[in-house]
Amino acid sequence: MSIPEITQKLLAAKQNKGLSFADLEKILGRDEVWIAALFYRQASASEEEAKLLVEALELDASYIQELITYPVKGLGPIVPTDPLIYRFYEIIQVYGLPIKAVIHEKFGDGIMSAIDFTLDVEKEEDPKGDRVKIIMSGKFLSYKKW
Amino acid sequence: MSIPEITQKLLAAKQNKGLSFADLEKILGRDEVWIAALFYRQASASEEEAKLLVEALELDASYIQELITYPVKGLGPIVPTDPLIYRFYEIIQVYGLPIKAVIHEKFGDGIMSAIDFTLDVEKEEDPKGDRVKIIMSGKFLSYKKW
Amino acid sequence: MSIPEITQKLLAAKQNKGLSFADLEKILGRDEVWIAALFYRQASASEEEAKLLVEALELDASYIQELITYPVKGLGPIVPTDPLIYRFYEIIQVYGLPIKAVIHEKFGDGIMSAIDFTLDVEKEEDPKGDRVKIIMSGKFLSYKKW
Amino acid sequence: MSIPEITQKLLAAKQNKGLSFADLEKILGRDEVWIAALFYRQASASEEEAKLLVEALELDASYIQELITYPVKGLGPIVPTDPLIYRFYEIIQVYGLPIKAVIHEKFGDGIMSAIDFTLDVEKEEDPKGDRVKIIMSGKFLSYKKW
Amino acid sequence: MSIPEITQKLLAAKQNKGLSFADLEKILGRDEVWIAALFYRQASASEEEAKLLVEALELDASYIQELITYPVKGLGPIVPTDPLIYRFYEIIQVYGLPIKAVIHEKFGDGIMSAIDFTLDVEKEEDPKGDRVKIIMSGKFLSYKKW
Amino acid sequence: MSIPEITQKLLAAKQNKGLSFADLEKILGRDEVWIAALFYRQASASEEEAKLLVEALELDASYIQELITYPVKGLGPIVPTDPLIYRFYEIIQVYGLPIKAVIHEKFGDGIMSAIDFTLDVEKEEDPKGDRVKIIMSGKFLSYKKW
Amino acid sequence: MSIPEITQKLLAAKQNKGLSFADLEKILGRDEVWIAALFYRQASASEEEAKLLVEALELDASYIQELITYPVKGLGPIVPTDPLIYRFYEIIQVYGLPIKAVIHEKFGDGIMSAIDFTLDVEKEEDPKGDRVKIIMSGKFLSYKKW
Amino acid sequence: MSIPEITQKLLAAKQNKGLSFADLEKILGRDEVWIAALFYRQASASEEEAKLLVEALELDASYIQELITYPVKGLGPIVPTDPLIYRFYEIIQVYGLPIKAVIHEKFGDGIMSAIDFTLDVEKEEDPKGDRVKIIMSGKFLSYKKW
Amino acid sequence: MSIPEITQKLLAAKQNKGLSFADLEKILGRDEVWIAALFYRQASASEEEAKLLVEALELDASYIQELITYPVKGLGPIVPTDPLIYRFYEIIQVYGLPIKAVIHEKFGDGIMSAIDFTLDVEKEEDPKGDRVKIIMSGKFLSYKKW
Amino acid sequence: MSIPEITQKLLAAKQNKGLSFADLEKILGRDEVWIAALFYRQASASEEEAKLLVEALELDASYIQELITYPVKGLGPIVPTDPLIYRFYEIIQVYGLPIKAVIHEKFGDGIMSAIDFTLDVEKEEDPKGDRVKIIMSGKFLSYKKW
Repeated sequence: MSIPEITQKLLAAKQNKGLSFADLEKILGRDEVWIAALFYRQASASEEEAKLLVEALELDASYIQELITYPVKGLGPIVPTDPLIYRFYEIIQVYGLPIKAVIHEKFGDGIMSAIDFTLDVEKEEDPKGDRVKIIMSGKFLSYKKW
Repeated sequence: MSIPEITQKLLAAKQNKGLSFADLEKILGRDEVWIAALFYRQASASEEEAKLLVEALELDASYIQELITYPVKGLGPIVPTDPLIYRFYEIIQVYGLPIKAVIHEKFGDGIMSAIDFTLDVEKEEDPKGDRVKIIMSGKFLSYKKW
Repeated sequence: MSIPEITQKLLAAKQNKGLSFADLEKILGRDEVWIAALFYRQASASEEEAKLLVEALELDASYIQELITYPVKGLGPIVPTDPLIYRFYEIIQVYGLPIKAVIHEKFGDGIMSAIDFTLDVEKEEDPKGDRVKIIMSGKFLSYKKW
Repeated sequence: MSIPEITQKLLAAKQNKGLSFADLEKILGRDEVWIAALFYRQASASEEEAKLLVEALELDASYIQELITYPVKGLGPIVPTDPLIYRFYEIIQVYGLPIKAVIHEKFGDGIMSAIDFTLDVEKEEDPKGDRVKIIMSGKFLSYKKW
Repeated sequence: MSIPEITQKLLAAKQNKGLSFADLEKILGRDEVWIAALFYRQASASEEEAKLLVEALELDASYIQELITYPVKGLGPIVPTDPLIYRFYEIIQVYGLPIKAVIHEKFGDGIMSAIDFTLDVEKEEDPKGDRVKIIMSGKFLSYKKW
Repeated sequence: MSIPEITQKLLAAKQNKGLSFADLEKILGRDEVWIAALFYRQASASEEEAKLLVEALELDASYIQELITYPVKGLGPIVPTDPLIYRFYEIIQVYGLPIKAVIHEKFGDGIMSAIDFTLDVEKEEDPKGDRVKIIMSGKFLSYKKW
Repeated sequence: MSIPEITQKLLAAKQNKGLSFADLEKILGRDEVWIAALFYRQASASEEEAKLLVEALELDASYIQELITYPVKGLGPIVPTDPLIYRFYEIIQVYGLPIKAVIHEKFGDGIMSAIDFTLDVEKEEDPKGDRVKIIMSGKFLSYKKW
Repeated sequence: MSIPEITQKLLAAKQNKGLSFADLEKILGRDEVWIAALFYRQASASEEEAKLLVEALELDASYIQELITYPVKGLGPIVPTDPLIYRFYEIIQVYGLPIKAVIHEKFGDGIMSAIDFTLDVEKEEDPKGDRVKIIMSGKFLSYKKW
Repeated sequence: MSIPEITQKLLAAKQNKGLSFADLEKILGRDEVWIAALFYRQASASEEEAKLLVEALELDASYIQELITYPVKGLGPIVPTDPLIYRFYEIIQVYGLPIKAVIHEKFGDGIMSAIDFTLDVEKEEDPKGDRVKIIMSGKFLSYKKW
Repeated sequence: MSIPEITQKLLAAKQNKGLSFADLEKILGRDEVWIAALFYRQASASEEEAKLLVEALELDASYIQELITYPVKGLGPIVPTDPLIYRFYEIIQVYGLPIKAVIHEKFGDGIMSAIDFTLDVEKEEDPKGDRVKIIMSGKFLSYKKW
């Protein structure tokens, strides 16, 4: 899972500036997860968004072009080895079919879009140990019949 | 992705009884996703839960033993081929590293547990098209140093 | 690539009745490719469609239930070995990135839906040798930013 | 899916010149998808085509030799991770056998050529959302018996 | 590499009748390799060919239908383990690119068809040890430009 | 399928000299396919052959040592993606078992050697389209019993 | 690694008769490893050898036909999981290239045949712990140049 | 199967000095196969062995440190593509279970060690063609019960 | 990960008798993990051990033969999908090289045997949550030089 | 299994200073295995730990930043080829299900955490050959029901 060079430079600049993704959320008006996706070149910015980011990170304007390019997506090995990312793979292995069954029951035959899609990460404070909350929201797409 | 025989029988009984997972949620006092996981033998019931389910589905009591057994989990092919399930795999490929970056920023080095974990599926009505909402909540586990 | 049992029975019944997929197109009011997808349990019928098909094939009404079930989709080996199907895989290997480049140029960042999607197979008569024409039409989905 | 160096240079030159693949279609007299395939070194140009392209992009004549070389083709990972490209893989998984069934019914035993083959990408404007139209046309090749 | 049931029955019948593939070549008027491909359901017979074979093997007429069906082709594991078959895989690994270079030099950009294709196996007697001669003949297909 | 550096230099030199593999066949007294295999470092030359080749291509004498080294062989991905090379893989998938059946019938239990082996590529002119003819000849090796 | 049914029956009969492979070595006049290979259907017997074995094991004569058939060979998973068999795989991973280097130095470019080949297993008694001795002897095959 | 840089330098030095592995056997007092394993960094030398080798090859003393390091072992692709090395893989596929059966019969449940292990390569001169003899000797290790 | 039939019968008998592996430990005089390994046919019993087990489970004496057979070992998919078993795979991915570094520092070049090996599972009670303790003990095996 | 550059520099510095992981254990107040994991960038240090290490190794302060970064974890090939590391993989293949059975019997449905986890490597002196002792301790995590 080699990290693209531009990602490394963006991360280093962000660290030098002492900015968190949450700080960038305020500057760009986009969610921190989407911004992180932009860092890893899994999303493409508008020219305006790219400029805001490049300014915030005090980077060279030449980065703008790269950030607005539509990337070839998908970062990883077939089965992720990083424990944090693997847990999401495990959730598919264990809960994939049950989720499918419940979605079909609620919506009929179709899927949850991963394109018309948002994902938030929240921290739930809990005396028994804080919890990571992931909220995904994807448009339901019915299979078209023809 | 061959469905275990017991799953097929449970699904058939549920259909004959005209029950949804949401109906079973009221009977068992467990979330519909967890119940669907039990159907696919990705979760194990207590004896009481097993009895309630077997009664609700009017199945033979011999199913109880099977439902309380701790299963060998994991259902699928390495890369899921079903479009609905694949979208979750795609989310890992595209948003896996960004999610990791944001979780680490909020919590430090560690992971979201997939064991001390809940998952809900909700229907968000939306005039532009209903949306599937997935809410995961997993305990944050810090890496122990020793 | 083991063919599901129901598919084998549907194909046998269709052959006994001397019906082509094109004949069924007229009976069901659905495209022949979609009907073939239903045969291979890659699509789910409405109750009415299932009844029409079962009647046309003079099959037992018990098939209706199975045809309206939402199937777990995806039929094949990771790389298809059948020469006809492999050619489509080859088209992805060879023309995948070029298609991506052209779609992005015409539409921006997003994808062609494979759900809000139709596919037609036509025969183009040609003195130098008939041609297979495949027409796919999928809704363009823009990446949502959030 | 590492992009060959020549591809990167061609894409950069095209961008500097502000040319789209559609613009190049007019200059070369070849379809934009074929030209994109040439960019990704999945097709080989005639010397004349190479010259036209190199001139249009104001590149060094040394590129001509490379563009007329017959490349080793196939660009990608076994299962594509890019969502746009993956959808075509999914179409094979879901509709591969149905397409095979319909082609055989219309043509007999044989395949659609991926060599004597053309592929067009069109934009279908639609008030409910524009659609991507892919038209493939491949010569039908009957299995020779001997 | 599980052998289809029909193949086993055809092979057993052939053995009972004491017939070689070369004998069947005379009866069917087709090459022995093509007939062997038919046995392994990698080729489809015309009704007449199927009848001739079924009669020669004194099998039930019900086999005819199966022999004229267009099969899903491809028999094996990804890398063949049988030493005889593996040698052909090794030839691709070792001589694949050299063959490609020579074919391109002689014919230009294109491929050898595996559909408009014949394959013969001959025995070359040789005092230093008999030799297996494989003669493949496939139509050269030029890449179509569009 | 990354081409070794020496191969690239040999191919470039051959092109600069305007020599075909068929021309080199006359100079080296070896078949063009074997020479192409030497280019791709899938064969090792004698010192004399290496000298002849280096002289013909007007290369530095330092290449001789490399050309006489016994290489680690095997060039490619597990399943070849290049369409020309893939067709040979397809031939194994489709005709592998039939070829095995016919060879065993003609020769008994054993294999065709891929070491005591020659391979020729010929152009068969044909008004319906030229054909690629591949002739392999490998010594039959009987399984030794002990 | 599913064991073929005939292997299971041969092994059971051998056990019932209280015979070791070493005992069968005396009866058949073949090495015990070759006989074990015959049991696992990785070798084919002559009719005489098959009769001797069937008699020794007091099996039905119908086994003879099966034992003289030329099998499709290769038994296992790609990487063996059984610890005893895996050690041989490990030897290839660790000593494969060194063995290649030494064989080439002693013999030139070529291979050790695995067909004109014998393999013996011996027990070396040793006060520090008995040792397994494996002796392979394969004909050296030089690469033919053509 | 990329060869480590140190291996390439050791092989080049050995060639420049005109030494065979057999020559080095006399200098180091270790078997030629073990020395070849050291070259490929599949074995680690004592300081004394490393010095002897570095002197014999007239290399810089800085190589000593690298040669005494305990390496991460295993050189190759999962299934070896080099024909010489593949034959050993084939031997596992074909004779793996038979060898297991014979070892168990002679020794009980356990394995042949690949660590307390030696491997020799010998040339057996034979008028019908020289033979490669491989002698492996590994300590038998019984499964401990606890 | 299909469980062998004998394992299912042993597990069912154990459950019917209300015995834990810890109870069987007292009866057989073997560790509970080893006994579980015997259940899953990953270990072989002596005749006496097999008898004790069969009596304790009140099973038919015919099981004895099966339990003393030396099994083909290895149970699972290449990457385990069951979360409990996967964690051990993750430990190899994350701590494999660090463990290797520490073992080499303490012992020199060699390995921990997985054959002369014991493994215990203990429950460590802990007010912050009980802990699973795994204790492995394997003989250190030095690489033999030869 | 390419070792990250920082790991190579840390290992070289450690060697130059003549320090073992056990020595570093005293300096950092962390276990030697955890420190080795830090070297291989499978663990992240606190700023204080990073400083102590950098000072002990007399490295540049610029390493501190890298050592406190949360790494993407997982080092290796899917099936490890290094013999020492492979033995742990083998233990999963052979004892994975038995361990699962015993843990479930002692603790119920859940897993051993690999995050709230420690691992020690000890040397057990033994006249019959020293033994490697691995002690893992991971918090038991019960599956949450919801």
